[in-house]
Amino acid sequence: MPFEKRSLEETACALRSRELSAVELMDRAQANYDRWEPALNVYKTWNGEGARKQAQAVDLLLASHVDLGPLMGVPVSVKDLFGVPGLPVFAGSDTALPEEYSAAGPVVQSVQSQLGVITGKSHTVEFAFGGLGVNAHWGTPVNPWSTDGHRVPGGSSAGAGLSLLQGTALLALGTDTAGSVRVPASFTGQAGLKTTYGRWSGKNIVPLSTSLDTPGLLARHVKDLAFAFVAMETAMGRQPAPEIPEVSLADLRVGVPENFFWSDIDASVAEVVETVLSKVATQAKSLKRMTLGGCDNAFDVFRAGGLAAPELSQYMQAHFPEKIARLDPVVQLRVAGAQQVSSVEYLRRKAVLQQSGEEALAVYREFDVLVTPTVAIPPPLMSELQEVEAYGRTNMLALRNTVIANLFGWCAMTLPVGLDKRGLPVGLQLIAPPHAEEKLLAMGLAFEQLIGQGPDLLGPVPGMAG
Amino acid sequence: MPFEKRSLEETACALRSRELSAVELMDRAQANYDRWEPALNVYKTWNGEGARKQAQAVDLLLASHVDLGPLMGVPVSVKDLFGVPGLPVFAGSDTALPEEYSAAGPVVQSVQSQLGVITGKSHTVEFAFGGLGVNAHWGTPVNPWSTDGHRVPGGSSAGAGLSLLQGTALLALGTDTAGSVRVPASFTGQAGLKTTYGRWSGKNIVPLSTSLDTPGLLARHVKDLAFAFVAMETAMGRQPAPEIPEVSLADLRVGVPENFFWSDIDASVAEVVETVLSKVATQAKSLKRMTLGGCDNAFDVFRAGGLAAPELSQYMQAHFPEKIARLDPVVQLRVAGAQQVSSVEYLRRKAVLQQSGEEALAVYREFDVLVTPTVAIPPPLMSELQEVEAYGRTNMLALRNTVIANLFGWCAMTLPVGLDKRGLPVGLQLIAPPHAEEKLLAMGLAFEQLIGQGPDLLGPVPGMAG
Repeated sequence: MPFEKRSLEETACALRSRELSAVELMDRAQANYDRWEPALNVYKTWNGEGARKQAQAVDLLLASHVDLGPLMGVPVSVKDLFGVPGLPVFAGSDTALPEEYSAAGPVVQSVQSQLGVITGKSHTVEFAFGGLGVNAHWGTPVNPWSTDGHRVPGGSSAGAGLSLLQGTALLALGTDTAGSVRVPASFTGQAGLKTTYGRWSGKNIVPLSTSLDTPGLLARHVKDLAFAFVAMETAMGRQPAPEIPEVSLADLRVGVPENFFWSDIDASVAEVVETVLSKVATQAKSLKRMTLGGCDNAFDVFRAGGLAAPELSQYMQAHFPEKIARLDPVVQLRVAGAQQVSSVEYLRRKAVLQQSGEEALAVYREFDVLVTPTVAIPPPLMSELQEVEAYGRTNMLALRNTVIANLFGWCAMTLPVGLDKRGLPVGLQLIAPPHAEEKLLAMGLAFEQLIGQGPDLLGPVPGMAG
Repeated sequence: MPFEKRSLEETACALRSRELSAVELMDRAQANYDRWEPALNVYKTWNGEGARKQAQAVDLLLASHVDLGPLMGVPVSVKDLFGVPGLPVFAGSDTALPEEYSAAGPVVQSVQSQLGVITGKSHTVEFAFGGLGVNAHWGTPVNPWSTDGHRVPGGSSAGAGLSLLQGTALLALGTDTAGSVRVPASFTGQAGLKTTYGRWSGKNIVPLSTSLDTPGLLARHVKDLAFAFVAMETAMGRQPAPEIPEVSLADLRVGVPENFFWSDIDASVAEVVETVLSKVATQAKSLKRMTLGGCDNAFDVFRAGGLAAPELSQYMQAHFPEKIARLDPVVQLRVAGAQQVSSVEYLRRKAVLQQSGEEALAVYREFDVLVTPTVAIPPPLMSELQEVEAYGRTNMLALRNTVIANLFGWCAMTLPVGLDKRGLPVGLQLIAPPHAEEKLLAMGLAFEQLIGQGPDLLGPVPGMAG
């Protein structure tokens, strides 16, 4: 069943003209949930009954001329790290966290204050510590693009991209500490935005790494991403309200970092990205291969456990000591070594990252945007991840291209640009300096206009035929 | 039928515990409307159907754990100067203003963003230009405290206080340019707050005098007023969110201006106020009779048409020239002379007011609050206002004690303190410096604790028996 062909902006118009009702939209989401949830395993907690009530409320309010904002009536899935009143938070762990974790923070409030309809809590890697989407407690969600077995959906926002594919949400909230929004977006053929650190509050979101965590959005295409970003920030009370400027490719100086991002890359992924880059080169003001300094130093820090391993360890010892022994093995693995990291080493890492990010900023004097493959590999098969070492290696490679923006403190996004020879989605990453989200999204729109819009570009999903 | 005994805070709790539903509350409001509207004439436009939909939406949302704020589900009447989407604006005039006047401004948005339920548009003096509540186009609402004929409800927010008495709203939005919140509050036995000029936006409220207009609130007692004030400002995004401090009468230095406010005062009104002041004197740190400078100069300006006459004239010529000839005679009277006021005279008036207000501010070094009778006379009988001259004289006297706070740029409130010998409500006015609303309300609460709370203090309304 096609969920909703309209863009978010068109959906908002249709709800207001009564051409579409929020209940109708939610009923379709419910039908899609019933039809596809057993195969895909998208949600930890489905909020069908609550969401339908909210949709009914939206229709009543619109009928009585009460308009609370652009996301009113839009089905939104929420990664199960965010507190949502009335719904439990598991954060991917084996038991629910105490009830106070369900309180809404500013990001969820910005959805609920405009009566975005929260469809449920989407699956996550335990405590968000992993980029593939694996979860031993609740099962790893299934990537329906695969035709040759169970491939991962990307993570840690494992259910976020899937909820859009499944047809249960038109917008998904995720978090991104090393790529946890962009990797699942890329692996499932969706658009995703990682906000600048500190731009959106992390309050009432279970933390992985308080130094690097950033809330983010996934949507079917860049147009929706931009619409939702503006709606969310307006509801957060940002002054002046954000505006997406008009940007033409003809004005853009595009940098393509050659080092680092292309090593060990899958040949077919590389080919899809190169084809797109040739197309961009014909339209952009300039497209230059260049070198982005500091990546290796920063990535060495990440590979050694970065800031997340010590920060998550400390958090778990303080709040959930009893959960440590029960951690998902793939998370256990990464937290284990943290105790041996000295405070001096931790502070050295912070200093290295800060310096690398600041130095690298100079690149934006010469380029408006940096472009890379979002992920160097296609979504791996679960069967390839059975051994701990293979998991660790693959996880590192999956996060390598995205984590640089986190480590440098920048913002970044991904958009779907095609299918590889296996029929698996490939994403293109756009990286911009801190607090440049508006321009980043505007550039993403220009790329999308050139390349084509997600669902139309990629075509039908094999695992969701019939 | 008793509408709702609970305070707003208790109502908010009862709605959340499901002890009370928003629909139940709205159904009671509808029954009260049906029962009392013919006798009282409170609303220009009743929003029964829309309000019930909003109440249904509130119940659905609360049941699905979506809480949009303290006023969620609270029935709120809105003076028919404010734009409310879906409802026409007449501004007391004979025909509806164009549809764009129905757009919501920040004050209405702060109610609607938390899903306060808007019950309708309450009657106003035409373009708010009058303090008694008279309206020749739509009939003057009836003050049910009267036992001897049709007494006015006070104005210009003529239906605002009545909506609380009638049992159709637990909060009323009004505007106050010379006393238009405080006079109807006092005349109907309610509490009322005039905010400091500029504190709340006047956007999408039909203006009377852009130099002096201030939005304000009416509620059954000070406790509700304080609760609603905090809820509204929080929804407006005020940072930091306002807090009502703890204030004890024992810490308050109360000033009672002897000049000006007591001349030509009704003997029975004076007696009620004096009795209350004696009581206050026993508890306050000090209560001193004193002189407030600048009142006579400022009031001379007001009597000559003040700023409102030229400002309303200009506004009407620019926007509704066709309405000028059709103005309610009592408004016509006051607008007529404005054309003869020179620009130099207008600017002189502004200068006099600004200087008077600034000089008078010094009084707050010696006193925490100034206290006066809110209105020097009881609500007059319509039969006493038939002659234009009598109307003009009475209108001036009714507004005299309140207008000083407008002319000086201060904030002020009124609370009901008893009934005069005719059984008509008497209000006490508290006046404070600009932007001291939090402390003003805190002082009002201390006064209310000493004197007693509105409805309990005043007892049953004679015109609403049986």
